[in-house]
Amino acid sequence: MAAEPQLDLGAIDRLVHEPARMGILSVLDGVAETDFLFLQRVLGLTKGNLSAHLAKLEAAGLVTARKAFVRNVPQTTLAITPAGREARVRHWAQLERVRDLGRPPG
Amino acid sequence: MAAEPQLDLGAIDRLVHEPARMGILSVLDGVAETDFLFLQRVLGLTKGNLSAHLAKLEAAGLVTARKAFVRNVPQTTLAITPAGREARVRHWAQLERVRDLGRPPG
Repeated sequence: MAAEPQLDLGAIDRLVHEPARMGILSVLDGVAETDFLFLQRVLGLTKGNLSAHLAKLEAAGLVTARKAFVRNVPQTTLAITPAGREARVRHWAQLERVRDLGRPPG
Repeated sequence: MAAEPQLDLGAIDRLVHEPARMGILSVLDGVAETDFLFLQRVLGLTKGNLSAHLAKLEAAGLVTARKAFVRNVPQTTLAITPAGREARVRHWAQLERVRDLGRPPG
């Protein structure tokens, strides 16, 4: 194993790296869009917890949240953005490199 | 995708999940033992940063640090413990499950 820095650990996006947000991006990456309650149930998060994580992801442009009334019931529909998919792909590539740090090259 | 919790995101060990500590465990998992300077160079961390992360991993019993003088120069030798290897395997299994949240089963 060469003794120069193999990767920039500082470049790992902590916004994406937080486990709940990793989970949100994973679920959203597998569907065109989904609703808040479904996401809450699949991830086993509290309403407040999920809302806080979604707000951070939305502020960073990685997900969109569309609010509407369906039969007089408020519903929030979530979707990943192209930037969100890219951030997820980049993050997993970085994690794979961290994982392979201990392995001999080739 | 079933709408029950697919995994317990809270069970992901934040001590291990921190990127620099993930990197430390990866490098140490690939060698019997190594020295502080090598680890510092491979991970591109500052001395203080690496020391702080190692102290946390050592306190949790995931790594050992052996200090000695080699030709009058202080040297710290690091190694992963069996508990450290287990924690790393468990952590990666959890990350794979997070990654697969968006994929249809089977």
